[in-house]
Amino acid sequence: MVTIINQKLDMIDNYYQGLLTAHPHLAHLEGIPLIYNKAFNPNKVPILSGGGSGHEPAHAGFVGEGMLTAAIYGDIFTPPSSQDILKALRFLNKGKGVFVIIKNFEADIREFSQAIHMARQEGILIKYIISHDDISVEPKRNFQMRHRGLAGTIFLHKILGQLSNNGASIEELERTAFQLATEIATIGFATKSARLPNAALPLFELEESHISYGIGIHGEEGYRTVPFHSSEQLAIEVINKLKMKFRWQEGEHFIVLVNNLGTATDLEQAIFLNDINQLLELEGLTVDFVKNGKYMTSLDMTGISVTLCRIKNDTWLESLKAPTNAFAW
Amino acid sequence: MVTIINQKLDMIDNYYQGLLTAHPHLAHLEGIPLIYNKAFNPNKVPILSGGGSGHEPAHAGFVGEGMLTAAIYGDIFTPPSSQDILKALRFLNKGKGVFVIIKNFEADIREFSQAIHMARQEGILIKYIISHDDISVEPKRNFQMRHRGLAGTIFLHKILGQLSNNGASIEELERTAFQLATEIATIGFATKSARLPNAALPLFELEESHISYGIGIHGEEGYRTVPFHSSEQLAIEVINKLKMKFRWQEGEHFIVLVNNLGTATDLEQAIFLNDINQLLELEGLTVDFVKNGKYMTSLDMTGISVTLCRIKNDTWLESLKAPTNAFAW
Repeated sequence: MVTIINQKLDMIDNYYQGLLTAHPHLAHLEGIPLIYNKAFNPNKVPILSGGGSGHEPAHAGFVGEGMLTAAIYGDIFTPPSSQDILKALRFLNKGKGVFVIIKNFEADIREFSQAIHMARQEGILIKYIISHDDISVEPKRNFQMRHRGLAGTIFLHKILGQLSNNGASIEELERTAFQLATEIATIGFATKSARLPNAALPLFELEESHISYGIGIHGEEGYRTVPFHSSEQLAIEVINKLKMKFRWQEGEHFIVLVNNLGTATDLEQAIFLNDINQLLELEGLTVDFVKNGKYMTSLDMTGISVTLCRIKNDTWLESLKAPTNAFAW
Repeated sequence: MVTIINQKLDMIDNYYQGLLTAHPHLAHLEGIPLIYNKAFNPNKVPILSGGGSGHEPAHAGFVGEGMLTAAIYGDIFTPPSSQDILKALRFLNKGKGVFVIIKNFEADIREFSQAIHMARQEGILIKYIISHDDISVEPKRNFQMRHRGLAGTIFLHKILGQLSNNGASIEELERTAFQLATEIATIGFATKSARLPNAALPLFELEESHISYGIGIHGEEGYRTVPFHSSEQLAIEVINKLKMKFRWQEGEHFIVLVNNLGTATDLEQAIFLNDINQLLELEGLTVDFVKNGKYMTSLDMTGISVTLCRIKNDTWLESLKAPTNAFAW
């Protein structure tokens, strides 16, 4: 399969050039891989997120009023450099500091934490949260949870973004971030691995008509591969894993985000969402809000992830329901 | 490749069950394959569109305030029956008649025109437009334009929907529809054909690393197959064909819609959009509005289409920019 690009060298630049023409509320900061909301209000705490490319529409798709102030990006599956992140922090800080949302991957944490360290030395107030919603396990390491940052990160973008928009202080954002992050869990599956642009081979081999549970968003293989049986069977596996994590009680309130990992069809995704909904109903849970779309992908991987967030505070739900002009929400 | 469904028999029903949980402004009319806007205002002229399934998020994704009042659907690539369409027309008519947007395909026109004929015999006022934006040609038939209804139909949904919302009469909607339909043109390409759910083979064969220009949305092959070279080369072919259709003058105003035909990645799509934009700029055209997303697909086809609309009236642009809660706009 071909990849529809010109050259790999300027692929990411071309992407953002195209994107900005479709979304005039966004701007690119000259010389830095940063997309920001042109209309951001300097009297509110700015929120920065980002990471490697290859997860489109993340993260630029979540920049807008009531969501991220800016998104910083690197090359495919490679985080931005600490120097670029530092420049972004300087640009965003208008005296209220900067709140940063980082996905839990070693390379991301290395670059972001260096930048935060340097920014703090310059006297910029920085608080951050490390998103770790992945509940899939590592079969080679005693089935420990992997805790990578996956599509659940989007809930942090939306809820913290809206709270900042409402005037929350950076300390209030940090408090909510810690409460939220432990109530968000994500798990997914793929029927086809991602392939790097113009690469001949996929990032992992998956036998025809098989599925891999617990895949990552950088082409990491899942914890188990089985033959495909039905959408319902996928939903049962996913809900069982989420149940083990949450140990929920009947009547608890949740929000659901079903995320296209790249190239599942809309038809497939809503069929799978229907199976997820039916199981949550059987469990006696109350689902107050459902998001269904393409939020955090892994290039052309065919797969879907499910994120649940247990609602511990009504402002979380209100913040999710508030309008935003971020184009991918 | 597997298709993530349960059984083909209830696949479309499952899709809508899932979809409705994510979009509470939509409702399903009992016993009829019709999705409608719960809050539709009976004092405004209702707008109905629809057709076969397999084009998700079309058409339910365009039902909402300021867009379609309702969308009727059939099985995969099969229009709804005239009997079901007639029932939908009866339901939607609250005394102001119904305006219908039909895509130009033989089977669709047969079912919709029978239903319209019967509804008129019952005294229901019906006006309609047949969307025919496809400018690809048929090599086996003297290169005649195919004039199928493709993604350009979405501009009719949005502009007529907003005009109805502003209080336009059914005669005014018809007048605008005729002016608009001739100023909309669509052409696309695919790097991979669509495959019917669980089918072993794609609907047409496309050699590895080749592209087909002028494909349809029901798995119809294009007018020419060539090896893939670059995104820019695709954009040149597409813009040349659009230029032949419009015979534009420098300085004319256009709107652009770049549509994911199923499984192109967001990265590829915005890179291609960037090439399209650059060529339109070289042509000296003014692009007032760009839409970039997934609107009218052909199952899991990998490809992109480009729609241009020449702006003959400022209300068209205002109508496009007006807000709507239709989830796929």
